[in-house]
Amino acid sequence: MTDLLLREDMENSRDARFKSVAAQLGHSFDGDIRVGGHYAPVVQHGTEVYISGQVPRVDQTVVVTGRVGADVTLPQAQTAAKICVMRGLALLRQTLGSLDQIERMLRMTVYVQCSQDFTELSEVADGASDVLHVILGEAGVHTRTSVGVFQLPKNASVELDLVAAAKTIAG
Amino acid sequence: MTDLLLREDMENSRDARFKSVAAQLGHSFDGDIRVGGHYAPVVQHGTEVYISGQVPRVDQTVVVTGRVGADVTLPQAQTAAKICVMRGLALLRQTLGSLDQIERMLRMTVYVQCSQDFTELSEVADGASDVLHVILGEAGVHTRTSVGVFQLPKNASVELDLVAAAKTIAG
Amino acid sequence: MTDLLLREDMENSRDARFKSVAAQLGHSFDGDIRVGGHYAPVVQHGTEVYISGQVPRVDQTVVVTGRVGADVTLPQAQTAAKICVMRGLALLRQTLGSLDQIERMLRMTVYVQCSQDFTELSEVADGASDVLHVILGEAGVHTRTSVGVFQLPKNASVELDLVAAAKTIAG
Repeated sequence: MTDLLLREDMENSRDARFKSVAAQLGHSFDGDIRVGGHYAPVVQHGTEVYISGQVPRVDQTVVVTGRVGADVTLPQAQTAAKICVMRGLALLRQTLGSLDQIERMLRMTVYVQCSQDFTELSEVADGASDVLHVILGEAGVHTRTSVGVFQLPKNASVELDLVAAAKTIAG
Repeated sequence: MTDLLLREDMENSRDARFKSVAAQLGHSFDGDIRVGGHYAPVVQHGTEVYISGQVPRVDQTVVVTGRVGADVTLPQAQTAAKICVMRGLALLRQTLGSLDQIERMLRMTVYVQCSQDFTELSEVADGASDVLHVILGEAGVHTRTSVGVFQLPKNASVELDLVAAAKTIAG
Repeated sequence: MTDLLLREDMENSRDARFKSVAAQLGHSFDGDIRVGGHYAPVVQHGTEVYISGQVPRVDQTVVVTGRVGADVTLPQAQTAAKICVMRGLALLRQTLGSLDQIERMLRMTVYVQCSQDFTELSEVADGASDVLHVILGEAGVHTRTSVGVFQLPKNASVELDLVAAAKTIAG
């Protein structure tokens, strides 16, 4: 992501960097992110913002499916992780009005649907961590847990959820 | 759960609705919920209440065991998810005195012991999300992550944990 | 852990008990705990302290690897869980200055790389819960979730993450 890091030096706005990364991934992340059941994509309590598990869905399609290490390569899985975290950032932008309202990313948990012997789970998660760093700078530095799971919703290759701190309390 | 939704319109009390759902599931959820080791079923910090992972245990027995998609059907897994979340609500009721003391459900993570190709993990989790909505209304709308795992304690088919916001800080 | 419990009665200092457990495990837990990517081992927000997923790494080596129930026994997995949680405590000590600055452990999530039929996931987690209790006493009593996963980073047998409450807000 050398070119992205370069852009970080060149552009001051988080929202502009979000658009740059979106363009690189080839998706706008502008659409509504809806959920199917009796739950919400985002809930804020005090300054803490919880974000539901995101799969690499673009519009109505999960674009990276299957088992990493068998059907899906590490670079493909990293792209999946980037799409997941961009969805999370898009939700934060919708909820807070701007990515500038993020005080700090607190936690990211990354679930990878993997083959039995695929152990590069941290490397998959790096795709998402890099995006947070490029777009948010120091505020994007988070704690992280990466695990390999047996299945994910809609056969997604990667799912991740987030906890963020907002600059102001909801209400 | 049409009849439950009807009841929601008809009854104002969360605790009454809790009893209705318990009766539907055929369990009282009145007993002590104890844990075996050096940890606690519930810890409150400020207004945030953390609840330990709940399996579909009734008294001393885990009532839904085995791999969803192989040994266990989707409806059976949804029932398991309902029992898990009812245990979580029972713990919140014990801790806070009444379900009316819940400000908002913040986070639910649902782990499903599944077969290799079972991808309806969100659908399993819907069982639990529906119960939160029926009993708590808007306060029950939470963020959610659903994943398929390889095993669970006591061969349980489903396990879930919760973070809730209470209306008042623990004394 | 009878001898550890005995020591708890005899020594008042959490930091001294940390050193006793470290000596029993045969590791100092004195070294730097670094992470490879754009994330942090610890992030504090208000009084809440999030700790990244810890594997049983000593210096640069993950010392317990493989699938619990097949390559790894329950006692070996419990030792792995103890090493993981000691790393978490070492990080809290570095961040807060002393283990005395911990108000309460709030949440521990324990991921076990297990074989298909290995269900003693709570028993593995007990290794870590016992360490928290021995070193922190009542402040170490936490909520917990234990799951069996398909793989973990670097083929680790156990990974766990933590949320703790600190006595004071980060400066």
